[in-house]
Amino acid sequence: MLTALAGGVGAAKFLSGLVAVVDPASVTAIVNTADDDEFHGLRISPDLDSVTYTLAGAQNVAQGWGLAGETFATMDALDRYGVPTWFRLGDRDIATHLFRTQALAAGAPLSEVTARIAAAWGLATRLLPVTDDPLATRITVRRADGREETLRMQEWFVKERSESPVVAVGFAGAETATPGPGVLEAIAGAETVIVCPSNPVISIGPILAVPGVREALVARRDRVVGVSPIIAGAPVKGPADRLMDPLGIEVSCVGVARAYADFCSTLVIDSRDASRVAEVEAAGVRAVVADTLMTDSRIAAALARETLASVA
Amino acid sequence: MLTALAGGVGAAKFLSGLVAVVDPASVTAIVNTADDDEFHGLRISPDLDSVTYTLAGAQNVAQGWGLAGETFATMDALDRYGVPTWFRLGDRDIATHLFRTQALAAGAPLSEVTARIAAAWGLATRLLPVTDDPLATRITVRRADGREETLRMQEWFVKERSESPVVAVGFAGAETATPGPGVLEAIAGAETVIVCPSNPVISIGPILAVPGVREALVARRDRVVGVSPIIAGAPVKGPADRLMDPLGIEVSCVGVARAYADFCSTLVIDSRDASRVAEVEAAGVRAVVADTLMTDSRIAAALARETLASVA
Repeated sequence: MLTALAGGVGAAKFLSGLVAVVDPASVTAIVNTADDDEFHGLRISPDLDSVTYTLAGAQNVAQGWGLAGETFATMDALDRYGVPTWFRLGDRDIATHLFRTQALAAGAPLSEVTARIAAAWGLATRLLPVTDDPLATRITVRRADGREETLRMQEWFVKERSESPVVAVGFAGAETATPGPGVLEAIAGAETVIVCPSNPVISIGPILAVPGVREALVARRDRVVGVSPIIAGAPVKGPADRLMDPLGIEVSCVGVARAYADFCSTLVIDSRDASRVAEVEAAGVRAVVADTLMTDSRIAAALARETLASVA
Repeated sequence: MLTALAGGVGAAKFLSGLVAVVDPASVTAIVNTADDDEFHGLRISPDLDSVTYTLAGAQNVAQGWGLAGETFATMDALDRYGVPTWFRLGDRDIATHLFRTQALAAGAPLSEVTARIAAAWGLATRLLPVTDDPLATRITVRRADGREETLRMQEWFVKERSESPVVAVGFAGAETATPGPGVLEAIAGAETVIVCPSNPVISIGPILAVPGVREALVARRDRVVGVSPIIAGAPVKGPADRLMDPLGIEVSCVGVARAYADFCSTLVIDSRDASRVAEVEAAGVRAVVADTLMTDSRIAAALARETLASVA
């Protein structure tokens, strides 16, 4: 049994490579929920949906989020009503949100709703929200006039295109959140725990912030392997650099190694970062060099294979 | 000022004729809300939306409901989740339902939400839900095995295609519902009150069932004129015959006249029913003969003009 800590797009790509080389039913993904939000009364879970849609082969590859062949008739029609439509929900995607919103309103926990959505997409892989409790990334930015403002993750990321300079990141609800059903067991019982190439601050960070999760990982440190989401000093996609740097995390595989060192024994870094092996290892993390830029499914599968081999 | 009691499609056609011959801003439509329901967590108001979309010129004329050029991507995608999708919501229509559902959840009464939707569609005509309180048509049918079952209106009408034989009709909530803001005033203050050609049992019936409304109409009887929705013994569209007959209302303009006689002084009947003028008048209702089959906007406008002239 394998367990993976997952954010959105990067994790989804890695997981699709992983399930190509191992039995998909042997994989449990513990997924970040701190990007979740509500728009137009609909409960959205961007990372859970990215992983679900990608594992189902239904994702929009070019766009990096949502479903392939998606249409936006509802969003276009919502413009008429003068409500904010900067967070674009596709028509087919809305079906997922309607289903989730109604199931949650009926009292089902997110973990159960997630399992039903995954089943509806025919996934054999188990997806576990890191928590069924409220957990929300809050990003404090500095405005041009020096004033600080705290934004919801999607406000900063989508509405403000990650442009507003970050001064702090917090996870509302983290103190009282409890790990979702099966989360700690999946870490404790896994042969290997993989930290997918996801944003260390706002994808992996919230998972670690749920009390008990980091401790569970520390206890399995020898069997925890990460894949650096930073290649040659830059994220493959997304705003990791704009979050790591202000928080004092070097935007490099070395910075990732230092951030993960207490719970992660091994880090897969990109071949473009081969010169930094010694620095990674100086952080107490064994470095393994591989091609981590998953430009196609063959590379993703090879990366998954090498990641598993690195702690074999 | 003119006030109209309105159900869905027939009323919407009539009203579009009316606003072609009088100032749209002089018209108030009191609209049935007892067909309202909730699907996938979305609050739908079929009659309010039919009137809104039709007055905005955006309705699907061929289909008789919903928006022209509508797509159904969300509904098709919902099928995956195993939820009932027999009530088809179009993608653009869903925007209206999302807006309404969220506004209601935020505490706005339906009357206020309706005004915002009408404004968004640029309507000058005032649309008033008959009540802001819960009001729901319940249709009791007899099953093949003799057993009786009570259905929500949309279950009977859409899911069961009006095929199950009706034994009774009720309006849940009617006893405690109060007329919406402006409803009684619109009846009391109108120069003329028009009962649109809508289903007497489940479109006009619930409006009359809200305490105070029928009394307000009775007080204005001389200025109340109805348009028969029954032509030559059959409804133009919809299941009026399947509801009137089991409830002992003759499926004819004469049956309509008898049902409306206590609050309606004049009934416009179709030229195909000219032979029944004496029977209508025997019910105490003055009969006016006109072409009531609104196959195009010109006929709808002419009917509106003749309806107004009938009580001039």
